[in-house]
Amino acid sequence: MAEEFPMTGGDGPNSYAKNSNSQRVAADGAWGMLVASIFENLDIQTLPSRPTTASSTIFRIADLGCSVGPNTFIQVNNIIDAVSQKYHQSAVELPEIQVYFNDLVSNDFNYLFATLPRDRQYFAAGVPGPFHGRLFPKASLNFVYSSYALHWLSKLPQELGDANSPAFNKGRILHGSAPYEVGQAYTAQYAKDIECFFHARGQELAPGGLMVLLIPGRPHGTLPAQSSLAPYYAPLESTLADMVNEGLLSEDKFDSFNLPFYCPSVEELGTLIEENGCFDILKFEIEAAQTPAIFPNVQECRAGMENILKNHFGDEIIELLFDRYSKNKNIAGSASLFADDGLAVGFFVLVKRKYL
Amino acid sequence: MAEEFPMTGGDGPNSYAKNSNSQRVAADGAWGMLVASIFENLDIQTLPSRPTTASSTIFRIADLGCSVGPNTFIQVNNIIDAVSQKYHQSAVELPEIQVYFNDLVSNDFNYLFATLPRDRQYFAAGVPGPFHGRLFPKASLNFVYSSYALHWLSKLPQELGDANSPAFNKGRILHGSAPYEVGQAYTAQYAKDIECFFHARGQELAPGGLMVLLIPGRPHGTLPAQSSLAPYYAPLESTLADMVNEGLLSEDKFDSFNLPFYCPSVEELGTLIEENGCFDILKFEIEAAQTPAIFPNVQECRAGMENILKNHFGDEIIELLFDRYSKNKNIAGSASLFADDGLAVGFFVLVKRKYL
Repeated sequence: MAEEFPMTGGDGPNSYAKNSNSQRVAADGAWGMLVASIFENLDIQTLPSRPTTASSTIFRIADLGCSVGPNTFIQVNNIIDAVSQKYHQSAVELPEIQVYFNDLVSNDFNYLFATLPRDRQYFAAGVPGPFHGRLFPKASLNFVYSSYALHWLSKLPQELGDANSPAFNKGRILHGSAPYEVGQAYTAQYAKDIECFFHARGQELAPGGLMVLLIPGRPHGTLPAQSSLAPYYAPLESTLADMVNEGLLSEDKFDSFNLPFYCPSVEELGTLIEENGCFDILKFEIEAAQTPAIFPNVQECRAGMENILKNHFGDEIIELLFDRYSKNKNIAGSASLFADDGLAVGFFVLVKRKYL
Repeated sequence: MAEEFPMTGGDGPNSYAKNSNSQRVAADGAWGMLVASIFENLDIQTLPSRPTTASSTIFRIADLGCSVGPNTFIQVNNIIDAVSQKYHQSAVELPEIQVYFNDLVSNDFNYLFATLPRDRQYFAAGVPGPFHGRLFPKASLNFVYSSYALHWLSKLPQELGDANSPAFNKGRILHGSAPYEVGQAYTAQYAKDIECFFHARGQELAPGGLMVLLIPGRPHGTLPAQSSLAPYYAPLESTLADMVNEGLLSEDKFDSFNLPFYCPSVEELGTLIEENGCFDILKFEIEAAQTPAIFPNVQECRAGMENILKNHFGDEIIELLFDRYSKNKNIAGSASLFADDGLAVGFFVLVKRKYL
């Protein structure tokens, strides 16, 4: 069973709902490309059509790793707008639309459901479970979307916390500037996860169905050690390291803590999709990250990291940890920017389920 | 917008999960009939089939008003067992199965999802919203089930709380032994709700699709005032009345409080289904209620009523109210049975979506 560390639920000051601006900026930046992708590539005539009036075609959309709103609702509306326009342009009546909101079982679905747009033009359903496995019946989806969720690994490679392994990730919480073996351990786990992801989606997407993935990535030819995720979490790492140095946290606890995040290089992801064999890659854009190159403030860090930190370090350390995080020189200082070295890129990947 | 009063969520001592035995007994009693209904009436060959190997048929089940487990999981498993046997008997490969768990937005879906059976043989989804309206795309369901949920009205008739109306329900919390006009107000609201329910299901069920409804009902020719629901809630009514008499609760608050429950007579429900026109009634069994004729104990009452009572009377009265409920002579006494006068009946209704 994969470990689950959802975003912080509800709508409190530390909630994901109130602290997901950077994710929204990234998705907003991809909006034009998303519309164009749907317009250029959606095959209207290939949807199953049934002759009787009682039956109808249905267009089914899934947002995988949707967390809670508002980002998912905004993006789903964007997708539906584009799909609607495409149908209108094709002079085909728009089918009824069903939207599946997926995230881990521990996601705050109660909050998600309570905040569903009241004027929505679709039938909504929540689907709990890890997207590395099957979530939907065969060939039942027409459009899959996943925004800044696929960098989550299903689990951490064990060797990262093993003092006897060359991949022991001592003194770090991610693979940035880490020895080659640490990066390799992350790479191997990511490959397994993405294989599972595409295998599942290959079964679930109807022939001709589209999938758009927004993924934090690495430029061509870079190593995991150069990942742009690492600087983003550097203030958290240095806060934890300071606490170890001051005797507030055990060194063992720190050394055995790692973040289950990974962003692939262009060639890594491309190879994994090709190897799956079910999808044609229609678009693979590499863009300078749309997210501003600033460190996450304490609320943003807390919204994303609180559950994973609690799970490893225990509840009792959390308030102190985030208090110190807020006073970290990179967070407290107003000039809290890290260098734009070109390593922070985002992938816009559009694939189409083959007809076979 | 309909008011929402879900069962008490989670798994605490007052939760619905721990206090829904009577609902389970009722559903268990219908198990044999459910299996037979599926066996005798499910049209295997009418499911849409698609020729390509990438596509597949899918069998979709919805439990409307499912609350949280374990009852819904047990019944869904029973349904799937019967469907599987029917396919096996017909020598047709079982399609993949998707199950939609529906209840009000305020239902504890987080708990429902966390307790989904790990070894389930279906894809699970949660669908939030009132079942009096549309919840699913057209013709997308193959089997609908609803167990002891349809006695919930979408709202209370306003005149019940209006001191100037002949339907003013002074001193009572339900229609038992009430004036004719009170019963009529309930009857009219129920008719509206059921019309909406069948209208929505008529659109959502695929042609040939089956729907099984377990409904607390009234024998032929009885009036709402004779409803068997009323005695069930008599201890709650008398507890509230005692609190009014002792000055612990305002009389106005009491007089304006009513339970949004109604159970129809055989002819009432039959007429409403016929008027809808989309369904053939294949079975309409009237059974002596399988639930033991005992009053709900304080935990059971609390699991079902806490939210609705809080909403009307406020949080501050709840502990006192249930403390007094537990000491009510009908609850505290071991001989807490009410007469089995034949009025407590349950309907097992099986309808089939016409092919038209």
